[in-house]
Amino acid sequence: MATTNHHRVTNQTPPLSGFNAFRLNPLLLQIASSSNAETLKDFDQIGRYSLSSEAQELAEMANRNPPQLKAHDRYGRRVDQVEFHPSYHALMRRSMSYGIGSSVWEDAARGNNNGHLKRAVRFFMLAGLDTGHLSSLSSTNGAVAALMTAPHLAKEWVPRVTTRKYDSAHKSPVDKSCLTIGMGITEKQAGTDFTALTTRAETVGNGLFRLTGHKWFLSSPMADAFLMLARTPNGTSCFLVPRFLADDEHNHINLVGLKDVLGNRSAATAEAEINGSIAQMIGRDGEGSRAIHEMQTLMRLDSALISSAIMHSSLSEAVHHVRHRKVGGRLLIEQPLMRAVLTDIALDVAASAALSMRLARAFDGARSNDTEGAFAHVMTPVVKYLTSKIAPAVIAEAMEATGGNGYVESSVLPRHYREAPHQSVLEGSGNMMALEVCRVLKRTPELFDVILKDIEANLGDRARNTSSVLRAAFDLAQDDESAARILVEQLAIAAAASELYRLETGVLADAYADTRLGGNWRASYGMLGKRFDNQTILDALYPPVT
Amino acid sequence: MATTNHHRVTNQTPPLSGFNAFRLNPLLLQIASSSNAETLKDFDQIGRYSLSSEAQELAEMANRNPPQLKAHDRYGRRVDQVEFHPSYHALMRRSMSYGIGSSVWEDAARGNNNGHLKRAVRFFMLAGLDTGHLSSLSSTNGAVAALMTAPHLAKEWVPRVTTRKYDSAHKSPVDKSCLTIGMGITEKQAGTDFTALTTRAETVGNGLFRLTGHKWFLSSPMADAFLMLARTPNGTSCFLVPRFLADDEHNHINLVGLKDVLGNRSAATAEAEINGSIAQMIGRDGEGSRAIHEMQTLMRLDSALISSAIMHSSLSEAVHHVRHRKVGGRLLIEQPLMRAVLTDIALDVAASAALSMRLARAFDGARSNDTEGAFAHVMTPVVKYLTSKIAPAVIAEAMEATGGNGYVESSVLPRHYREAPHQSVLEGSGNMMALEVCRVLKRTPELFDVILKDIEANLGDRARNTSSVLRAAFDLAQDDESAARILVEQLAIAAAASELYRLETGVLADAYADTRLGGNWRASYGMLGKRFDNQTILDALYPPVT
Repeated sequence: MATTNHHRVTNQTPPLSGFNAFRLNPLLLQIASSSNAETLKDFDQIGRYSLSSEAQELAEMANRNPPQLKAHDRYGRRVDQVEFHPSYHALMRRSMSYGIGSSVWEDAARGNNNGHLKRAVRFFMLAGLDTGHLSSLSSTNGAVAALMTAPHLAKEWVPRVTTRKYDSAHKSPVDKSCLTIGMGITEKQAGTDFTALTTRAETVGNGLFRLTGHKWFLSSPMADAFLMLARTPNGTSCFLVPRFLADDEHNHINLVGLKDVLGNRSAATAEAEINGSIAQMIGRDGEGSRAIHEMQTLMRLDSALISSAIMHSSLSEAVHHVRHRKVGGRLLIEQPLMRAVLTDIALDVAASAALSMRLARAFDGARSNDTEGAFAHVMTPVVKYLTSKIAPAVIAEAMEATGGNGYVESSVLPRHYREAPHQSVLEGSGNMMALEVCRVLKRTPELFDVILKDIEANLGDRARNTSSVLRAAFDLAQDDESAARILVEQLAIAAAASELYRLETGVLADAYADTRLGGNWRASYGMLGKRFDNQTILDALYPPVT
Repeated sequence: MATTNHHRVTNQTPPLSGFNAFRLNPLLLQIASSSNAETLKDFDQIGRYSLSSEAQELAEMANRNPPQLKAHDRYGRRVDQVEFHPSYHALMRRSMSYGIGSSVWEDAARGNNNGHLKRAVRFFMLAGLDTGHLSSLSSTNGAVAALMTAPHLAKEWVPRVTTRKYDSAHKSPVDKSCLTIGMGITEKQAGTDFTALTTRAETVGNGLFRLTGHKWFLSSPMADAFLMLARTPNGTSCFLVPRFLADDEHNHINLVGLKDVLGNRSAATAEAEINGSIAQMIGRDGEGSRAIHEMQTLMRLDSALISSAIMHSSLSEAVHHVRHRKVGGRLLIEQPLMRAVLTDIALDVAASAALSMRLARAFDGARSNDTEGAFAHVMTPVVKYLTSKIAPAVIAEAMEATGGNGYVESSVLPRHYREAPHQSVLEGSGNMMALEVCRVLKRTPELFDVILKDIEANLGDRARNTSSVLRAAFDLAQDDESAARILVEQLAIAAAASELYRLETGVLADAYADTRLGGNWRASYGMLGKRFDNQTILDALYPPVT
């Protein structure tokens, strides 16, 4: 018998590295097709960066070496710092240079009307690389929207978050080259229920307040300032709380511990005591939920983009794998069942990306166009709902296609899988989203017709039937809160199908609409059968690389 | 303003500890209702143990401190050992004492015809506690079935795995008080494709062989022996390979590394080189897949039980949480949407448990009853398919209901969520299961009628329609491999509905059948609406504890 050298490794898939995440994504290319040369160059650069082996190594290191709390220095002095691995700082530096925390506001200042969509394309590619480091950039971007409601604060703070420099120094905001902003809402006894918050704010004159209490999930604890909710005699209000005051004076945000989270591990989330921190109010006294909603709306778009991006990255890995791995002398991609399963997932992944980008477009048009305004208002929770709901099962299927090597932490798939629930558990739950949609539509039912008209516009023959399903779901949910998810899911699927048609994706749109709009119950993927040409759909979305 | 003491923690859910996992599970009680007093006492004991805070602490510790490879001792000698945390050994000791590796064979020896079902009930409760330590007990139990096909080996080995003692010593099997058995199939270049394995076996006389090659996922590397596949001139064959030979001589299974796995972290899985290990053949030369299939069939039942158990445990945590946590002055359980979502999940969780137990019952009856034999043969991959497919989304929903505290690793939910894909990625993929069902039904189409008749028996008015859907799916899958999952999913759902009716679960069975059999497409949970009394279903499955 011939000797087999088992140190020679064969039939293993090469890493999906060294490609361009933008050029490898025809749907993204299509969505970005009207961009100017400068923007396309920017997308190309980020596309190459985010699939480079160097960036992938940074992302893996940042997640393998999560941040550590350094409550005191070695002399016993309270410092309340979090130490990040150098790979985290490298990721931050790069993403800040790409304007992830600032570009929307730069574009707005220049009068550009596509800032959200441009940022969404960039954000999507970077989220496939690492989500944790994007947290503080997402909250920074969102915080600006809240600050805009308080012009005196915006004037002071916005220029400081838009320099695209990364400055991780622990010192006063005025002495730094660029700032990031975190968020503190949740307390032990209250998460989504703002009226049950107990952190209190007392006025100390000069428009300043002093906050006392705690936060149970303080995001980005090394940010330069936080948007926090706290109570005044008039109710829950929103405050801007810097980490340091003038002359590097510590503002008494004391970190008690870091959360040992399932995913999003490159980021830090802290339990904190607020021991008399100086703060400024944003928006009106007692109307904190309004200001924080401005911030959260933008963060929900980011959340939908993250869910979409980690699904896309996972499926890219799976498709790449099955194109290289042979079983029984045949590439896995050549197995009809494998192709059927991956194509069925691909429909949902493409729909999520298209729908998230549609929402970004609505944000861009919201001020100048009523339909876009209605879409942004009604559909933000809808889009976030669907994308976060399907991510765990989609990523698990992609992992399964990738085999045992996809279940070990040196693969990106476990990281994406662990991240997925973060988008629904910590960025606003599915039920919160569904109930919010119902509340908005109860308050302004006329918006429903605007949305319906927008969805119908691209659905052709399917428009009438889809609309009547949506109207029935709307009526149901008006009377019965427990049916809220039925309405939201149908809205999401219909809007996704509509957008896939608008993007002229042909058989992809047909396959999605045929199965998802009024199709049969299914508990798992792989239910397409032979009706559609799986190979064509899959190759169009995931062009083979050489 | 009154001072708020933020160190006083309110509105947090007490741990779900100190209860009885058997008594708290009415479906399990129903399934076990014909057990004798001795068995019920056994179930009660395990039920109390598996929800005790002591056991929960052990499980958390064993997963936080995963096993470490100790390739060499401190003198530089190769030892190829894996060091487990003491908590792992404690879990092993207890589960072995409960007969998880042995009781099926003890029962068989005593002529009892319910050994699989009894073990399944025990296994289910322990899997809710920790899955990793069950791996080596599952492979031990399965290996006995393979050994039974080689009576001379069975005679020598089976008595040694059935003493219920735990002995983790690194020495010759003959000198140990109890043995465990692991498994080595996968190689770098080949996972599911047995013909591509390259580890070779050369005969050395006396019925002994010498194996040379490698294994890429060697399960339970500290087992006393392994079932391994290797090639002879006649093809892929199955071997029993002890870790130590007589006089504690090391059998040259050299551990190269441990897998850094997403879940199942209390267990060890190794990359190993097989450098001339002495082995005995099991079954016929060149027919290794047959012997290993005996083992895998039993392990697939365990896999279905694990998926079902971690879903049940996750949902128990969620229901417990929403019964204690208030939002807006109202317990979460009182929110109609929350109830609708949890009930919708509960249907799938109950169906999974019922279906898995149905399979265990089929294993018990397989030799004496043709229907049960057919069920075991055809439905093992079907049951494993559905249970592993739905687990990620179910657990993610349970996590979401539990809020931020369910996303940190001190909760059991992240552990269950990380475990879920293990059951499909590493215990036989969904596509493998689906294609196997189609192969079996192509070879023996008459079994399909037997299964159909068994399913129909409990479905009443729904029988005819369900059967015609199943027949259509069967016909489709005969012609089109890519439709295999359609058939398998429909079979699983129909069999689950049938079993829920057989167990006389009333509205639960109605709700499951109404929505899952021919219902509308859905991408997420919470689609029940008002048709069924959510509260009744949920309280019946998860009785409130005080």
